[in-house]
Amino acid sequence: MSPNASMPPLQIPADVPSPEDDDKTQDAAADALHPVVSRSRTMTTTAEIDSTITKPGSVKINVTGAFIVDPDSSTPKNGRGSPTASTTTTHHETSDIRLPNHTAVVSHIAVDIGGSLIKLVYFSREVDIHTDPGGRLTFQTFETDRIDDCVEFMRDLRDRQLKLTGSRPSDLAVMATGGGAYKFYDKIRDALGVDVSREDEMECLIIGLDFFITEIPREVFTYSETDPMHFVGPREAIYPYLLVNIGSGVSMLKVTGPRTFERVGGTSLGGGTLWGLLSLLTGARTFDEMLEQAGRGDNTHVDMLVGDIYGQDYGKIGLKSTTIASSFGRVFKMKKDAEAAALAQGQQVDGQALPRGPGFNDGDIARSLLYAVSNNIGQIALLQSQIHNLSDIYFGGSFIRGHRQTMNTLSYAIKFWSKGAKHAYFLRHEGYLGAVGAFLKRQPKNWGRRGSLDNAGPGLDELQEWRKQRAKEEAAASTTGTEM
Amino acid sequence: MSPNASMPPLQIPADVPSPEDDDKTQDAAADALHPVVSRSRTMTTTAEIDSTITKPGSVKINVTGAFIVDPDSSTPKNGRGSPTASTTTTHHETSDIRLPNHTAVVSHIAVDIGGSLIKLVYFSREVDIHTDPGGRLTFQTFETDRIDDCVEFMRDLRDRQLKLTGSRPSDLAVMATGGGAYKFYDKIRDALGVDVSREDEMECLIIGLDFFITEIPREVFTYSETDPMHFVGPREAIYPYLLVNIGSGVSMLKVTGPRTFERVGGTSLGGGTLWGLLSLLTGARTFDEMLEQAGRGDNTHVDMLVGDIYGQDYGKIGLKSTTIASSFGRVFKMKKDAEAAALAQGQQVDGQALPRGPGFNDGDIARSLLYAVSNNIGQIALLQSQIHNLSDIYFGGSFIRGHRQTMNTLSYAIKFWSKGAKHAYFLRHEGYLGAVGAFLKRQPKNWGRRGSLDNAGPGLDELQEWRKQRAKEEAAASTTGTEM
Repeated sequence: MSPNASMPPLQIPADVPSPEDDDKTQDAAADALHPVVSRSRTMTTTAEIDSTITKPGSVKINVTGAFIVDPDSSTPKNGRGSPTASTTTTHHETSDIRLPNHTAVVSHIAVDIGGSLIKLVYFSREVDIHTDPGGRLTFQTFETDRIDDCVEFMRDLRDRQLKLTGSRPSDLAVMATGGGAYKFYDKIRDALGVDVSREDEMECLIIGLDFFITEIPREVFTYSETDPMHFVGPREAIYPYLLVNIGSGVSMLKVTGPRTFERVGGTSLGGGTLWGLLSLLTGARTFDEMLEQAGRGDNTHVDMLVGDIYGQDYGKIGLKSTTIASSFGRVFKMKKDAEAAALAQGQQVDGQALPRGPGFNDGDIARSLLYAVSNNIGQIALLQSQIHNLSDIYFGGSFIRGHRQTMNTLSYAIKFWSKGAKHAYFLRHEGYLGAVGAFLKRQPKNWGRRGSLDNAGPGLDELQEWRKQRAKEEAAASTTGTEM
Repeated sequence: MSPNASMPPLQIPADVPSPEDDDKTQDAAADALHPVVSRSRTMTTTAEIDSTITKPGSVKINVTGAFIVDPDSSTPKNGRGSPTASTTTTHHETSDIRLPNHTAVVSHIAVDIGGSLIKLVYFSREVDIHTDPGGRLTFQTFETDRIDDCVEFMRDLRDRQLKLTGSRPSDLAVMATGGGAYKFYDKIRDALGVDVSREDEMECLIIGLDFFITEIPREVFTYSETDPMHFVGPREAIYPYLLVNIGSGVSMLKVTGPRTFERVGGTSLGGGTLWGLLSLLTGARTFDEMLEQAGRGDNTHVDMLVGDIYGQDYGKIGLKSTTIASSFGRVFKMKKDAEAAALAQGQQVDGQALPRGPGFNDGDIARSLLYAVSNNIGQIALLQSQIHNLSDIYFGGSFIRGHRQTMNTLSYAIKFWSKGAKHAYFLRHEGYLGAVGAFLKRQPKNWGRRGSLDNAGPGLDELQEWRKQRAKEEAAASTTGTEM
């Protein structure tokens, strides 16, 4: 098995209770009654953003609250020094931890098989559910091209479950969504010998997003250059909203209620376009390498700006000289100049794409295309939100990958064009909306949160209590200069 | 002077009256009182479309009517055998005719200097205005990069005017618009020694478009695969409409009255993006070569279709298996496979862009990108038209170039997404809206049409008479099975 090298490595945080790891997870569970997540406006650092999104952490589930288990010890943050926030659990980088160290029982796997990527979520509970009534969601990504690796990974999880519990294969539930749930249905079912449920992709996306918005602290955030990662707390009044899911292509869903939605549009200019064109245009071989190049590049080397055409602003219609008038608009001329120069030097110009001249490099190309695709998605999202009268726009999907330029471009496009009337939100588990949604369509037996809500049992009371407590603390915080 | 080789060659139709060319232009002028353009539904052939748009012909102006002088003898068409339609003027390919054969007086030049192209229009009247009270608009394009060629061309026109009429340079009016009107203002003024008026780009676009819509027969048409070039006649009730001007970048203007407009949006993904990326990705060196490649290509070799992801339709939300889910979405995987294969064969893979494998060619890339850009513009135009409640969408600018796939994509996008509620229109002089608009902002002394209207003089009566006559004939035509 070779997980995709360009993806975040397998994340099984060290605080998964295990014989080898005697930590205090139960403290964390208890603390969830109180705001584990502080509402402090402490600025999130660049390094933190890079780390917390590319390694979004697993989600701890129990009857009293769910929260993200961050893969590094710096989070969850306790900006206001909340006395109840737990920092007793040890978190550290666990990239190299492998399944042999993982002894929890996996009873439930959900996969979202897209055009380029497979997003996999599995739920594991502790072997002894009396000492820990909760469990954990763990996230993993494969390239769709490597579906066999993914199937092997699932088979491995299944085998461990059998070994630990002596249960039958039929006890393992596999929920599948995305186009590949249809395309690879037989392959998965035959390989695992378990039932595979196929779930509608769009429905799963919104179920997953609803879960993250309403249940998970430190999951949803706004982004701006001056306040890069500003978390917004879980909330209940979330409808209506626009979900913009950016994978290989882009789907835009108008969501008006828990499972009430309509696909209002989309665009074929998505992640697949960026990855495909950049793999032809640059030497980059992974998505992360492309994003890294973009970070170093200067798009003005290849883009035609308003100033390139006008020599100044076009003030009458509000176009600044620095506005991008034409993405890649400078390239054609430069390419022709390079050809002419080559010919003048007696070099053969055989009509093939020439090595580009000194005018621009791979990074410039990557950044220009990243801007072009992001801006375009942002604009179409805004227009759709205007047509459908939606103020909240959530961006999900594996395109974003926590990349700051991407989020900044999307966020700025929404803010700029709507004059601040619309709000762009991002998620740490942005790529896993569909997978989590599929997961939630059939919950494992000892799954807490949602089950509690559905049954209106004691869990709900505790949750309400927790929310009340949080609201109180937030009110207090707002008078002491901190903000949600 | 070397006119851009990829552009339509200099078009000075042979029927420009000259001592060497004793033709019957006056007949054509007289015939303009009657519908020179038949309203027949005769299908326009592919060859005709290619010819009539890439060589849109000059526009004959006189006090009683303007019409397009087609550069080939097959047009204007006389589908209903209109007895008044003139075919006595001789039209033939005039690519090689040079200025020495052109003895009419040029009194007026307008240039629209964009990011990639300069569009030039000049008006010429006959030396003896008593024998022919009209004149002619002639159209020419240069690459902006070759501004010096354009200036030389204008100087040549100026010198001929001086020679023919003995007038002073100040008698020649040069109207300039587009960003280059600012950027190259000094250059043009100094080189020609004439006054140069700078005119607002957006205003010129709509003045030019209004002129073409309301005044010029056989100029505006709809496009569909089954009825490729369906002309709509000049009309007066044209507002409100959306103008989508596609040059290097794209501007979208909401137009509500003769000079009442607002730039409601645009996109940086325009012609410059297509030309720039294709110049890097393929061996094509001219726009026409790129379009020609696109015509031979198959985008499904590089695009990821819904069927590639689902293995079938995604019927629940109305996505067919043939819908493009992700433009270039198949490329990343193919590129990686090609790299792996190269490595397996012991070839060095140095991280540079590899020659593409056998999976796709330049044409496939060109077609995919043409579809992507056109579809995207079509979609944004539709959304803007929905937000601003506009039913008529006019596509102008030098991107379209009469290319059938482009027009079909734009047209289909509007029709499909609006369920037929919105209408896409194209123009034969699509690239010259701004130049003609600039031209019209200061009309030469012996210019007929608009002047007549403005002065409400005899010209208006004649025009109204002509329109009445046309309306009658159209009514008659509609009862005999023909249609506008």
